Amino acid sequence: MEGLFITFEGIEGCGKTTQAKLLYEYLINRNIECVLTHEPGGTLISEKIREILLDKKNYNMVYLTELFLYLASRSQHTFEKIIPALKNGKIVICDRYFDSTLAYQGEGRNIPKQKVFEINNFATGGLIPHLTFLIDINEDVGLERLKERKGKDRIEEEEINFHKRVRGAYLTLARENKERFRIIDGLGSIEHIHKEIVNIVLKFI
Amino acid sequence: MEGLFITFEGIEGCGKTTQAKLLYEYLINRNIECVLTHEPGGTLISEKIREILLDKKNYNMVYLTELFLYLASRSQHTFEKIIPALKNGKIVICDRYFDSTLAYQGEGRNIPKQKVFEINNFATGGLIPHLTFLIDINEDVGLERLKERKGKDRIEEEEINFHKRVRGAYLTLARENKERFRIIDGLGSIEHIHKEIVNIVLKFI
Repeated sequence: MEGLFITFEGIEGCGKTTQAKLLYEYLINRNIECVLTHEPGGTLISEKIREILLDKKNYNMVYLTELFLYLASRSQHTFEKIIPALKNGKIVICDRYFDSTLAYQGEGRNIPKQKVFEINNFATGGLIPHLTFLIDINEDVGLERLKERKGKDRIEEEEINFHKRVRGAYLTLARENKERFRIIDGLGSIEHIHKEIVNIVLKFI
Repeated sequence: MEGLFITFEGIEGCGKTTQAKLLYEYLINRNIECVLTHEPGGTLISEKIREILLDKKNYNMVYLTELFLYLASRSQHTFEKIIPALKNGKIVICDRYFDSTLAYQGEGRNIPKQKVFEINNFATGGLIPHLTFLIDINEDVGLERLKERKGKDRIEEEEINFHKRVRGAYLTLARENKERFRIIDGLGSIEHIHKEIVNIVLKFI
């Protein structure tokens, strides 16, 4: 595979969606072939799965059901969209991927981590990002930012302790996978963080 | 757990849905507490997943996505409906369960069988039926019967060789799990098959 696979991770409200989009626009403006996508979702089938996952009416979803729906969405997205784009030499920028499931379902939902890792790996055919930005903020800041948004989804509505544990899991993942993770302080200005990210990406191209 | 968990398996058109319903009516008429359910589906969340699985518009669904959607549906169904009913001492009659995934996704889709078994087991917390009826018919007969139905779903539309391999996988499963499997010849009359099934179930109660 010739392309470059970049993912953005972090807790709700950290700013990763904004930064993924800014990076995409930066690269497109320089005529670099690039795909911007997100999880859960990114393909027609995966978006239908996303609707089930985030619908607040599904308040009684079993944690294993949640795990398998994320993986179903990811398999479709990986094999239908990400891998073909990488094979075409493109840069793929993805808002959430593999690590979200390790952090949210493994740590957040307390599903055995080794098991989540194995099944996650199976679901993606072992496709790991080349570069992962963890936009790190304190969970208080994240939830404060979410308050300004209208209508939180089923995951965003979780209590603060849940988001705190997810943040901790992300920091552990970054420590254990130093070669591909870059931790970015999410408290800086949007423009400052964007420049930091661009500088790192340019070294990879 | 006090209840009795009975599943019906077989290829499309074998008659398992009819027989599951007849057994349910037989038991209910004798005031035996009983739940009739089916997969994929059986709960609100699982029915939403079923819609994605069987929708012909999703013709390009990746096999792993299909596997994970079946498992997502099954986890919800098992923990929300089947296990609570069994704990209440009820008989649960389920049209398709665990073995369908081994036959359809393992053999039919050629996903490594040991892997499918392990994840299936993980998705159900290891809940295996006490009694499984395999209503066995030749794939030609099954497809012939399907022709009379209006509108086939995404799985029913598969070619004959697919259904032949699924049938073979079911027969192997029955041979390897003799203690819980009962193979029923699906060519007999509905009434004859029903009596055969009732006779076996009565020995279990």
